[in-house]
Amino acid sequence: MSVRNAFYAQSGGVTAVINASACGVLETARQYPDKIGKVFAGRNGILGALQEELIDTSLESIDVIAGLRHTPGGAFGSCRYKLSTPENKPAEYQRLIEIFKAHNIGYFFYNGGGDSMDTAHKVSLYSQKMGYPITCIGIPKTVDNDLPATDNCPGFGSVAKYIATSVKEASLDIESMHETSTKVFIMEVMGRHAGWITAAAALAMDHENDPPHMLLFPEIDFCREMFLARVEQTVEDHGYCVIVASEGTHYGDGTFLSASRSTDAFGHVQLGGTAPILARMIKDSLGYKYHWAVVDYLQRAARHMASAVDVEQAYAVGVAAVEYAMQGKNGIMPTIVRGEGTEYTWSIGEAPLEMVANVEMKMPRHFISEDGLHITEECRRYLEPLIMGEDYPPFKNGVPVHTRLNRACVEKKLPPFNV
Amino acid sequence: MSVRNAFYAQSGGVTAVINASACGVLETARQYPDKIGKVFAGRNGILGALQEELIDTSLESIDVIAGLRHTPGGAFGSCRYKLSTPENKPAEYQRLIEIFKAHNIGYFFYNGGGDSMDTAHKVSLYSQKMGYPITCIGIPKTVDNDLPATDNCPGFGSVAKYIATSVKEASLDIESMHETSTKVFIMEVMGRHAGWITAAAALAMDHENDPPHMLLFPEIDFCREMFLARVEQTVEDHGYCVIVASEGTHYGDGTFLSASRSTDAFGHVQLGGTAPILARMIKDSLGYKYHWAVVDYLQRAARHMASAVDVEQAYAVGVAAVEYAMQGKNGIMPTIVRGEGTEYTWSIGEAPLEMVANVEMKMPRHFISEDGLHITEECRRYLEPLIMGEDYPPFKNGVPVHTRLNRACVEKKLPPFNV
Repeated sequence: MSVRNAFYAQSGGVTAVINASACGVLETARQYPDKIGKVFAGRNGILGALQEELIDTSLESIDVIAGLRHTPGGAFGSCRYKLSTPENKPAEYQRLIEIFKAHNIGYFFYNGGGDSMDTAHKVSLYSQKMGYPITCIGIPKTVDNDLPATDNCPGFGSVAKYIATSVKEASLDIESMHETSTKVFIMEVMGRHAGWITAAAALAMDHENDPPHMLLFPEIDFCREMFLARVEQTVEDHGYCVIVASEGTHYGDGTFLSASRSTDAFGHVQLGGTAPILARMIKDSLGYKYHWAVVDYLQRAARHMASAVDVEQAYAVGVAAVEYAMQGKNGIMPTIVRGEGTEYTWSIGEAPLEMVANVEMKMPRHFISEDGLHITEECRRYLEPLIMGEDYPPFKNGVPVHTRLNRACVEKKLPPFNV
Repeated sequence: MSVRNAFYAQSGGVTAVINASACGVLETARQYPDKIGKVFAGRNGILGALQEELIDTSLESIDVIAGLRHTPGGAFGSCRYKLSTPENKPAEYQRLIEIFKAHNIGYFFYNGGGDSMDTAHKVSLYSQKMGYPITCIGIPKTVDNDLPATDNCPGFGSVAKYIATSVKEASLDIESMHETSTKVFIMEVMGRHAGWITAAAALAMDHENDPPHMLLFPEIDFCREMFLARVEQTVEDHGYCVIVASEGTHYGDGTFLSASRSTDAFGHVQLGGTAPILARMIKDSLGYKYHWAVVDYLQRAARHMASAVDVEQAYAVGVAAVEYAMQGKNGIMPTIVRGEGTEYTWSIGEAPLEMVANVEMKMPRHFISEDGLHITEECRRYLEPLIMGEDYPPFKNGVPVHTRLNRACVEKKLPPFNV
């Protein structure tokens, strides 16, 4: 078998540990010099392939690559760009194959969510049809934890740990202040369609009545009356109320709370923020003093509070992607498989890309309590192992150290392409 | 000298390390059994004294007290309640003295900001006048870093480290995504009148042009045109723009941005949030895709990202407060004194309470760059040592362990008092 180069790209919203997967890919690929020549990484994801901006990772030192393990964000650049189908837009697929041919690329490792698995699958099929077969392996990544066929998704455990830790800490603050000041605290988290991150906030609880007292899932229609009644009851019972709300909290008709019909004095629709909308609702109806937080990008970038299990798994799926390719496998994605038994164990499995593509795994109903406002014990048992262990980055001058790539691109061989 | 009891109370907004100061007070007081009997802690701050809710800390174990060092929030409860003057409301001061007499309290340790130092000072004077002299020692605490007479305030270093770390991490996220998605990220931080926390965000920078690209201080009047021009220029130069804004960002006439005249469809004034206001301004004028975060309580509760220097100093001012009292000193506050020389050193000094009371130390103009939108090198040299070192809490089940006090109160001896 001749030596072929590989192409690696990061796709969609980044996570605290997507670079750990990159690290796994690059370190493992270097162990197969008889099969894999260079690994090129797409500058800004798949755009890098279309625009022939191929970062030559062979120019990056071993230390810099090792540092990817503790560096959040997407070190090569990511993008929100979904390829169409080969039928609708064959030019894009043709271009990919041309680029791969021009740079002797035989392996395509695509690190992303459901859309990306779909793209990898289509490239695999199309490349065979075009007589230039590419080995396509997907590498799972998403803070939303919504990919099928895998027990959990690399990226989720770390945001889960960050959210649980942050809510636990902030709840002590509200508890301290509630006698004369803040009675309600609302924290808005990511997960527009799936409530996994919201659910993870419950891991802050040591005991049954500990905060957070209420969780608002995108899987459950929001009911204003029920919500306000529960806030009032909680403040009466405990003196204060801590709420964690998904950014995707919505009414029964599907309207997001954050897209409420409120407009400002100039007629502009008010932009975003489920938490401030809930805060106003409480203030108007119950009069409680409130605070709210929207952590946004911080939650998925918080490598300083990464889950050790998550870092390990993110690295492992990167390693497995290359190993599978070396074994001649194609059109698959490494998965996380949970072991049987009470003690948490995990191993790497595999799933065909077509099984993973474009399926969104929401929270199952039995993971959500009957009233729709909290999680069940079963859900807790599922979530808890995923946030285990701390994996602190190195610090310098009081802040985390992050690796910096050269990102030098190889010389272009083809004419430009308009995306 | 006879054995007297002591009273300790936490006041105002809490911090990640105010309990470390409590730990210093309680551990040190136990070393003087011939002078200090029990330490009573006010349940919910000074309200605990007025309402005779005195937590008997002698019932708390050594381990539990040691655990205060890594527990955020105010473990005894805090409050926002400012005593009036003895002239305006003598009943409150009389009540305090009665409580202190009834429980043989001879020492008053008040852990708070400028208002609390003022109260401690007034209690000291009033108690002498009433013939029941109390030794009053203030213990500095504020995330805002705005107390005079001390080089810095316990509580600030940890929020500074958290903000610098968070901005550094989130900036990698925006950098990864900016090619096809988010161009502007705005993070809102605390510090309504003083811009120290905003300034600390600059510690995220390794190099001159690194994010955050712009800081909005409460010390500098906000200019919409200049702001938008700078955002546009930064996006042109770097592809994206990271902004850190104080919650107290205001126009030249003093109006906070967060109190903008916008109202919703029902005529309600829109509630809070400097960051979303700035985001809308950018969207409307420049059309850039944005994200924003408001960390609120999370920043001052983030004990998981505490500065080791800050924890050490918070503990040390608690220790010093008791030591000073044992030396017969009165009406003072322990301070942090910065050593001379290039290497950072610090020691504990003291300042009279009347010098500290009700003075708000804003950022000096020479700490802010000429254009008003960043910090100077001198400011960086001041800030950097304060975030040095990590001091991680213990973790269990993936989240930080926090100490839980019994908070058992001593039996009341006096009739109720209405506050």
